[in-house]
Amino acid sequence: MSLPPVIVVAPDKFKGSLTAPAVAAAIEQGLRRVWPDAEIRACPMADGGDGTLDTILSRGGARGLREVSGASGATLIAAYGIVDAPEGRTAVIEIAQVVALIDPVGTATPVERRTTRGVGLLIRALLDDGIRRFLVGLGGSSTNDGGAGMLAALGMRFVDAGGRDVAPTPEGLCELARVDAATIDQRLAQSDITIMSDVDNPLCGAHGATAIFGPQKGVRAADVAHIDATLARYAGMVEIEMARSTAQTAGAGAAGGLGFALLQVGGRLRSGADVVAEVVGLDRALRGADWAIVGEGRTDAQTLLRKAPIVVAERARAANVPVTLLSGAIDTAALPELNHHFSGCFALPAGPVRQDESIALAAVLLADRAEALARLWAAAAT
Amino acid sequence: MSLPPVIVVAPDKFKGSLTAPAVAAAIEQGLRRVWPDAEIRACPMADGGDGTLDTILSRGGARGLREVSGASGATLIAAYGIVDAPEGRTAVIEIAQVVALIDPVGTATPVERRTTRGVGLLIRALLDDGIRRFLVGLGGSSTNDGGAGMLAALGMRFVDAGGRDVAPTPEGLCELARVDAATIDQRLAQSDITIMSDVDNPLCGAHGATAIFGPQKGVRAADVAHIDATLARYAGMVEIEMARSTAQTAGAGAAGGLGFALLQVGGRLRSGADVVAEVVGLDRALRGADWAIVGEGRTDAQTLLRKAPIVVAERARAANVPVTLLSGAIDTAALPELNHHFSGCFALPAGPVRQDESIALAAVLLADRAEALARLWAAAAT
Repeated sequence: MSLPPVIVVAPDKFKGSLTAPAVAAAIEQGLRRVWPDAEIRACPMADGGDGTLDTILSRGGARGLREVSGASGATLIAAYGIVDAPEGRTAVIEIAQVVALIDPVGTATPVERRTTRGVGLLIRALLDDGIRRFLVGLGGSSTNDGGAGMLAALGMRFVDAGGRDVAPTPEGLCELARVDAATIDQRLAQSDITIMSDVDNPLCGAHGATAIFGPQKGVRAADVAHIDATLARYAGMVEIEMARSTAQTAGAGAAGGLGFALLQVGGRLRSGADVVAEVVGLDRALRGADWAIVGEGRTDAQTLLRKAPIVVAERARAANVPVTLLSGAIDTAALPELNHHFSGCFALPAGPVRQDESIALAAVLLADRAEALARLWAAAAT
Repeated sequence: MSLPPVIVVAPDKFKGSLTAPAVAAAIEQGLRRVWPDAEIRACPMADGGDGTLDTILSRGGARGLREVSGASGATLIAAYGIVDAPEGRTAVIEIAQVVALIDPVGTATPVERRTTRGVGLLIRALLDDGIRRFLVGLGGSSTNDGGAGMLAALGMRFVDAGGRDVAPTPEGLCELARVDAATIDQRLAQSDITIMSDVDNPLCGAHGATAIFGPQKGVRAADVAHIDATLARYAGMVEIEMARSTAQTAGAGAAGGLGFALLQVGGRLRSGADVVAEVVGLDRALRGADWAIVGEGRTDAQTLLRKAPIVVAERARAANVPVTLLSGAIDTAALPELNHHFSGCFALPAGPVRQDESIALAAVLLADRAEALARLWAAAAT
């Protein structure tokens, strides 16, 4: 064992507290108190949700800005990324940059009138730039339009019984009588679209987008069934027109059904953390490393469903690198299972503390805990 | 490095939560989840205060019971210990077994009338049993009599201007006119008395027993000066009679001035944790060990004043054994200093938690954290 060790620092963000690059920086600071000259390979992670774009760009690539429209239709400047992948230039789209649930402008409009049209506009603009590879991170959306807005922006027509275009929104789709895919952007067929998501809901039904995620976006309980039925009808027409069945696919219900629409234009759903791991070069970073540290704001049984810490742990195991978990909080009920994956599970607090205090002090606590881990490691490795 | 390692587990008690042996047992449980067959040397620690007796007896020796009197004068059964030391049979006295601040009977009497007579009775009974070596743990007392009660029980006479015995209490000593040591138990002169304390207050004055510890025992603010003057007068007479000056000695103010009185009969003040370390055989346990784990309920700047974790750390360093701290809580302001002493400082919580929850779950959290430390150690040592 060489001392100081070579350490991969690959945390996810601490939601509501620190971005993944900030978490990695705080951990690195603590480690350097023990090993000033250690080789520390920062590989901040993400799961395809909000923060994915910044995390990927912290490792390289270029940030671009494009004027599109937000969920309400109002003009909005959306950020995206361009990274050089072995397979070619790749655009990184985080849909929360376009239709974010935390965007006050978009959410001032009722959810029935919100649309993902802006996502389609962004993809079309990137196609115009010659991009044919897309990583689209779902998560954090305010929309529940089944992705109709995106499909409309990409050329699909939605018309009523009178042949008039309907708005690609839950409200507009009530009048939907016919779907026409003849005018859809042909460049999509030559494109490679990776959909990053970590939910496995279908588009409709009891576990569908509207029933599960609708209420937090403002869908009234009394309207769930009606909107769900509207999306089911819309999806059935799209599936027939495109001759492709994707409404039942696990993940079709992600981002208010945008998953369904992206699957319709040829997208492939993958675990966001796996995709990010590849883009940031995690396996390369793990090669020859002695130790890896991962973490997230809160670790519980959900984490085991291939969230970022588990994805890193799996890849680290393959590289024969032990991985330690350092999270803001750990659900102790999940520890027996978590212990199979990690060489020690640790949390931030230095003692009894309120959650808001722990969040406010996260960077300081992270550095302190990372230092403690390093001191223990150094003692054991000697 | 042999795996599993040989581990010394030497925690202090978690005050208000777990005894030191219980803390050690919980830590051992966590370690055994990783190394079922590890050689774990439990060496629970104490600092001379409450819990010292049980901690020492958990490592061997015999428990005795003796009928004496408590702080109020009421009959009370006091526990003590007899251990075999290389220098001979040694009695372990914890004064909180006789005059505890948490004893409702003793504290039903006003502090002005409480006395340490019972401590003297216990020592005399043990002298009758042939004991000549004593370890007396101060701390947790309800009395503020300057140790007059103990001295009276051991044969010293306190009389008023009319030659009548006065009560050996703050109230009785107001009438004190003369001290007579002629009748004091001569066996004390052949005895070896170690006083275990970790406070350095003198008997009287602004940093004395009455001013600093009196109020928590029920001394009214208006009475502090009066009682302090009474003890000063008493101490002056005792010092002249015994031809020995101890009122200014650091630690004379421990246990309401019992420190002063024990110094008068030849006692030597030592750090309680150092004495306990010797009695429980810590140095022997550290020999050939790979790792030590220490802890206490709360670690802060006070800990650095040679509390048990620091005493263990010093002895471990001498034995070339790295020591990790696992406490209920750590004051992060003390971390930079603490990090000089420990190979990692860790706390119990697995996330934001209230103090009462952390205390209630201490045993579970201890085992979980110890397991995490062990997993990290195992990864680093491989």
